[in-house]
Formats: sequence, C-alpha cells, structure tokens
Amino acid sequence: MAEDKLPTRAEDFSEWYNQLVVKSDLADYAPVRGCMVVKPYGWALWENITSWLDGEFKKTGHVNAAFPTLIPLSFFEKEKEHVEGFSPQLAVVTIGGGELLEEKLVVRPTSETIIGYMYSKWVQSWRDLPILIVQWGSVMRWEIRTKLFLRTAEFYWHEGHTAHADADEALEEMYRILDIYEKFCLEEAAIPVFKGPKSESERFPGAQITTSIEAMMWDKRALQSGTSHYFGTNFAKAFDIKFLNKKNELQFAETTSWAISSRIIGAMIMVHGDDHGLVLPPRLAPIQAVVVPIFKNDDEKTKVMEVADRVFAELKAAGIRIKMDDRDNVSSGFKFNDWEMRGVPVRVEIGPKDVEKGSVALARRDKPGREGKTFVSQTGLSSTVSLLLSEIQDSLLKRATEYRDANIHEPKDYEDLKRIVADGWAFAYWCESLECEAKVKEEAKATTRNIPMNQPDQEGVCIVCGRPSKRKVYFARAY
Amino acid sequence: MAEDKLPTRAEDFSEWYNQLVVKSDLADYAPVRGCMVVKPYGWALWENITSWLDGEFKKTGHVNAAFPTLIPLSFFEKEKEHVEGFSPQLAVVTIGGGELLEEKLVVRPTSETIIGYMYSKWVQSWRDLPILIVQWGSVMRWEIRTKLFLRTAEFYWHEGHTAHADADEALEEMYRILDIYEKFCLEEAAIPVFKGPKSESERFPGAQITTSIEAMMWDKRALQSGTSHYFGTNFAKAFDIKFLNKKNELQFAETTSWAISSRIIGAMIMVHGDDHGLVLPPRLAPIQAVVVPIFKNDDEKTKVMEVADRVFAELKAAGIRIKMDDRDNVSSGFKFNDWEMRGVPVRVEIGPKDVEKGSVALARRDKPGREGKTFVSQTGLSSTVSLLLSEIQDSLLKRATEYRDANIHEPKDYEDLKRIVADGWAFAYWCESLECEAKVKEEAKATTRNIPMNQPDQEGVCIVCGRPSKRKVYFARAY
Repeated sequence: MAEDKLPTRAEDFSEWYNQLVVKSDLADYAPVRGCMVVKPYGWALWENITSWLDGEFKKTGHVNAAFPTLIPLSFFEKEKEHVEGFSPQLAVVTIGGGELLEEKLVVRPTSETIIGYMYSKWVQSWRDLPILIVQWGSVMRWEIRTKLFLRTAEFYWHEGHTAHADADEALEEMYRILDIYEKFCLEEAAIPVFKGPKSESERFPGAQITTSIEAMMWDKRALQSGTSHYFGTNFAKAFDIKFLNKKNELQFAETTSWAISSRIIGAMIMVHGDDHGLVLPPRLAPIQAVVVPIFKNDDEKTKVMEVADRVFAELKAAGIRIKMDDRDNVSSGFKFNDWEMRGVPVRVEIGPKDVEKGSVALARRDKPGREGKTFVSQTGLSSTVSLLLSEIQDSLLKRATEYRDANIHEPKDYEDLKRIVADGWAFAYWCESLECEAKVKEEAKATTRNIPMNQPDQEGVCIVCGRPSKRKVYFARAY
Repeated sequence: MAEDKLPTRAEDFSEWYNQLVVKSDLADYAPVRGCMVVKPYGWALWENITSWLDGEFKKTGHVNAAFPTLIPLSFFEKEKEHVEGFSPQLAVVTIGGGELLEEKLVVRPTSETIIGYMYSKWVQSWRDLPILIVQWGSVMRWEIRTKLFLRTAEFYWHEGHTAHADADEALEEMYRILDIYEKFCLEEAAIPVFKGPKSESERFPGAQITTSIEAMMWDKRALQSGTSHYFGTNFAKAFDIKFLNKKNELQFAETTSWAISSRIIGAMIMVHGDDHGLVLPPRLAPIQAVVVPIFKNDDEKTKVMEVADRVFAELKAAGIRIKMDDRDNVSSGFKFNDWEMRGVPVRVEIGPKDVEKGSVALARRDKPGREGKTFVSQTGLSSTVSLLLSEIQDSLLKRATEYRDANIHEPKDYEDLKRIVADGWAFAYWCESLECEAKVKEEAKATTRNIPMNQPDQEGVCIVCGRPSKRKVYFARAY
C-alpha cells in the first residue's frame, strides 16, 4: 500500500531501496536475523524468473533433482579453498531429535560437496556422463550486514551442477550457461550485462575459472548478477568422481556449477525503479496491466464497469496478466500511486468520458505523468496493449543500456581511474596481477568486475603499473 | 538400471519397496541420516504432481510465498500442543557464523508458527482477509526409522496456510482443499481415497479438526495421503492475529493449514507397482511412452530407425511425453525390463516386420506380457496411444478401487475386527471415545484412519464397547 512517499533516489538511494522493497509488497523482514519473507507479489515475480530459466535449462538437456538441505560439516573440509571460503558463514545444526549430534550438520550454503559425493556413487563409466542437474531451492550464508534480496542470510536460487568427461565439454557448459544468463538479463529482465571471467581473487572458492555477468545499478555501483564456474578436477578429486573412459582408463570427471539468485530481483529494482516506485519489465511483471475504472456515482459506475469488465475479459483472453482494481474504499489517485509503487507496466483507465468516446487511457509506467499517457480506441485494445508492453520492454533495455554506457569511462591514467570509479565504471587495461588489483581496491574502493569476452586483439598497458596488457577489465564499486 | 530382479511383493513387500525405489531411479539414500536424494526421474514425477496442485490452488485464489527455513525455537513454545507434538523431532541450529546463537533456531518441521507471526503483522482489518498462501519446499522432522518417500527426516511438500474472518469460511476452506486432494488422487494418481475427519487422538498438534484422505496400499495397510486442518483461533491467539471486523470490533482470525507431501509418491508405488517394478499413472508419468527400435544389423537399423524417428516425432508433436531408447550397448530384453522397472505406461516396439507391415507393437505396463500387447497401425498412432494412455489411467483407478473395496469388511463383533485388520480394513461403528480407540490400537495394532464423510443417517453400536454410535470409522494398520 502506497500510503506515503519514498525518499527520492538522489536523496538517499539506500533508504529508497529499503522502503521500496517493503512498500511495493515484494518482501518483508522476517523475525529471524538476516532473513526475509518473500511476499506473494515478490514470489510471483520470482516464479516468472524461474519458469523462464527452467525452460531454457530443460531445452539444453538439464534435469532437476533435490539433495538434502543439511550437509555433514566434514564434507566442507574436503576441498581446502571451499572450506576457507564458506566456514565463516555456516549455520550449524548440533542437536537432532533432542540429542547432541555426533556429526555436525550444516544448513547448505551451496551444494557442490554433497552433490559431488552423490556423483561419485553414480558415475562409473563414460556412458554415465555428462550429468546435468539443477537444484531449485534456498541456501543459507550467515551474513552480517543484510539488505532484502541483495544480501540475506537465506536466499533463493537455482544451483546447476554438471560433470563431464573432459575439460572442453565442461568449459563449453560453463559458457553455455553464461549465455543463457545473458539472454535472460537482456530479453527478460531488460538489464544489459557484461559477461566474462572474474579475476583470480574474485573466484568462487574452489573454482579454476569463475565467469560472471555484471550489471550497473542506478547509483552506478556494480552488481554481480549471475556466475558460472569451472572446477577442473578439483571437486572430482575431493569427492572421488572417477569413471572408466573409452580407452578403459580411470579418469577424474570435470565439473561446473552456476547460479542466479533472488538477488536478480534487487538488480531489477535498482536498474529500472524510479522515484515513484518499482518499474517492472513487462515480460516478468506478475501483473502486466491493471484496469482502473473511474466513476463518481452509481449511474457512472454501472456504465463504466460494463466497459471495464469487457476490457478486462478481452485482455485476459489475449494472455495478458491483468488485474481489475475495483476497490471502493480508496480514491483513483490512491490506486494510481499504489500501482506505480508496485511497478505495473501499463495502467488502463476507464472513466465516463471514455465510455462515451469508445476509448480508454493507457498510462505507461516507464514514463510517469502526461508524457506516458495516450488515449486509444477500445477496439483492438488487446493488440494495442500487447504492442505497448513490447515497446516498454524494449525501451527499458535501451534506457538502461544508454545509462550504463554513459557512465563507463576509459581512464587516461591511474589518477583518472580513481576519479571515475567515484561515480561510474572504469574500463581499462590491467596486467592481471593481484598487486595492482589490491591497490585499486585499497585506494579507489573499486574491485575488478570482469574481463569482458570478445575483446579486440589489441595491446595496452596496465592502468596501475604500466606493464603490457592484452585485456581490459571493468573496475567499479560494487554491492 | 534393472540389472537384477526385485523380490516379489508376496515374498517381502518392504524389501520389494526399498529396492524398487532405488532401482527405478526415483531416489537414493543420502549421506545424511534419514535423508534422501530425489533423483531426476523422481523429481520429474514430483514436478508433475506439484504442477497440477499448484494450478488448482491458483484457480481457487491461492498465492505462493516463501518464509524462512529457520524458525526461532521460542515460537514453538507459544502453542502448547504444537510444541509437545514437534519438540522431539526438531533439528536445532545453535551456531551461526562461528558463534553460539543467543536464540536457537529450528529447521522448520512445519511453518504455522512463523507464518502466524507474519500474519499478525499483515492483518489489521477485515479487508486484509482472507489470506490464502501456499509455500512449496521441504521440512525437517528427526525421524528414527526412515523409508524413502514414506518417512524421511527431510521431505518435500506444500503447506497451505490461510486466515479467515470467520469459522464458516475457514471450515469451507478446509473442505475445499480436501476436495482438491481427493480429486488429485482420483484423477491424477489413480488412487481411491476416503476423506473425512480424523479422531481426536490423531489430530495435528494444535488443530481443532484434522481431516485426511486415506488410501489402501497393496499390503492392505493404510497410508494417510494428505491432511487439511482447522485451527479455530488457536494459532491466532498464540500469535495475536487480530483484525477489526465490519462492526469495528477487534476479533481473532480463524486459520487453517494443509499439506500433501512427497509421501504421495510412496503411495503410488505401493498401490500400482507390481513384481516387475513401478506402474505409473499416465497423467503423472515423466515418460508416458518409450519407443524401442529393434534390429539385428545395419540394414535393419536404417529401416527401423527411419520409422522410429517418425513415430517419436509424431507422438512428441501430439504432446505425449515420449522417450527414444536407442542405446546400442544393451539388448532389447534389457530395455523392456528397464522401462518396466521405471513404470513407463506404454512401450512402442518397432522391428523390421513392423516396418514392412506399417504396424507397431504397443505394450501396456499395467498388463505385462502377452495380455497387454497389441499390434496397431502406424497410421493415426498418436491418437491410438493417447486413447491407450487414458484407458490405462482409468484401468489403474478401477483396479485399485476394486482391490481396496474387496479388502474392507464390516466386522460382526470385536473379535471379528481383530481378524479383519490382520489382513484388511475394518469399517465399523465406533463411539468416538479415546478408550475404545486405544484398546483397538493395543490389542489389534490398528488405528482409526478417518470417519468418512457423507455417511447415511443411521445408528449402530460401537464395535468395541457396544454404546450407541452414529458414524462408522475405518480401522487399519497404517504406515
């Protein structure tokens, strides 16, 4: 309910975000430290996200399965980097059925270990490979500073875990998934992303390569929005995933894992949202259009509702996710604000004059006020609205891309880099040394985001140390 | 993989079940005490179940949401019966982020408490009601003796939690859901069930009424296959869910909760399965038909595969969930056994003679051997197979219903009841006293299952004590 106004983004972006998540009815704070409740409106958005991704995974031969929520603590100790990365964040079950457990169990922070253990049982021959499994669910990481969707102790995600007979196939899988993630962001979430490998220091614990998609938020900070990892044989060795290859030799499998989490909802909020509230991309919006009938008395009500009901039925039949707001205890103005807060892409207003003229007013959420309002004929309305939804979808991506690109700069020198990352991203050659990366982190508070793929075959010099470099990297402050 | 045979059901039903679950590739034992891994084949079955139920819930106005997996232990202490019921079964998190927690957290065994807490925040006015929320996920109950799908420490389910302005509406909701559960069992799972209230002693901890659907397994034991509970204002009082009613008076809400779990997969196995393996109802089977091409040499292979590929494409285009088994490292006999073990409803065999004759052989899984095999024309095959799938679906329900009804008896006296429940169900008048129920449990090892709804308005005498009674109950040994 949109009782009161948000602070503007310029006034206080963080507070704008915090209030918006709750006021738009996406989520609420749980009575458990650092956890959230995803409310029905937020979960419907998540279902639209998951349903698209699940469809793409299935098209590319993946299957879903479920592994236990609790994992023996000892499993984490089998891969050195993995245990170092996750130990500080574990929630540990020590009591079961009223008794102290001999073997402590961890509420899964990620499932490479237990899935690796099962794969070692399932894989004997090259004929058992590849295994392409996805698990949908939640995981738990004991975070200190939390923010709804962006960083919560429990969050929702899918985790893909695949095992392959050779490195080429595993690498191909890692990139195939990265492409699906990019496609999701561009076509569904209307968020432009850069994809490519992360630096060594930003890798997932235990990975040989971590690739990511990176997006720019309205405040110009970066958000890592999805990751796809190649483990080589690290986890296969830790969990003994071996198979007889075609030459009848025992060989370790090559594995990958990858994920997009409910964090992506945070990205949509921070990329598209405005000072009036959420702006949801039509392809994912739980409600794509809302019908608001406007009348002052019973006589008007009868006439208006007749048209409103017909319009509602027509749009619904056309497959548009449509809502009728016929509440009688709030004003039309209140309703407009309410649906703007919740980011519904199109508002269909119908008043007594529209009934006379055979028209309706369409208000675009991405262009609030007069600019986004048009009066159109009731005839052919479902096509008009469908076209408008497509136009809004395209327009959101275009706007976000222009905004992002306008805020990425190529620094002349290291001093320039420091200035740029205070209010944008820097794109610069980097020698890929840990030292130069650490220096930027320390002095400019910016991290390397990723080294985007498909760079032209050029050479330059590291923006920090001046040594020769072949690849540019994005530097930015990040969530 | 069907390398070796199952024991027959008559030899050892429990061992038949245990081996079948693993050999049919539905699930595997996890390296965590009492937990299972639901493998891709089992999860695909679960997705078909959940997708139907989710559709019905949405049609009846329910929405999905997500509440935390961890619940403060103190929440369980707010409802006296609830804490008594669940305390012995809790898994408790005592360490988070490396430190002992001040407030211990429980891995949810069920979510009435935390959802009740949130509802108390969300409900202020009668306009906020009803709330009709469903959560999909898993819960944890520390079980001592476990059996895959039937009783595991972690299991998968949905839990519906609704809050209403008055008792009538809440009761109506409880029964609406029970009807959906019955419809699911009859139309989708092909399992006949009795629906009605449970006895007082068999109620869910904290419920005023618990209703259930009860099914008979092949070994004639009962399986409670779904429950729908009415709490009255018990949880509203424990969690302070109050609202201003239309008269502007503060009033407690009336709540319900309900669930079907992954246990229903155990029911399908034990109702329909035979000595060759699973028999899945076509409407839920992940694979409805499998094409097995049969050939001895390359020349035959070319001809057969041409037809097999065409048949596969035609059935797939008709919306049949179809699989091609063109493995070249196992025999046709092995394939037949393998797909029988996995319960695929229809096998489409295509050999060189079928190519010549323009025919295929269809083998029905519910009638193994010659009886279930017919030779049909390749022309119009997708209609033929669709019809056959419907026929199998109907036939499974009919067979299960006849089997169940043939094994329910009305005892002449208490001694007769004891004989009957040793190998069937007894349907008898019962005075509804705890004493008589306890006596049957002690002496006949049978529990009351439920008091089926819509009984004729008759009177009789309690089968145990001879006191007058108006309602009959099912007595049976149960899982």
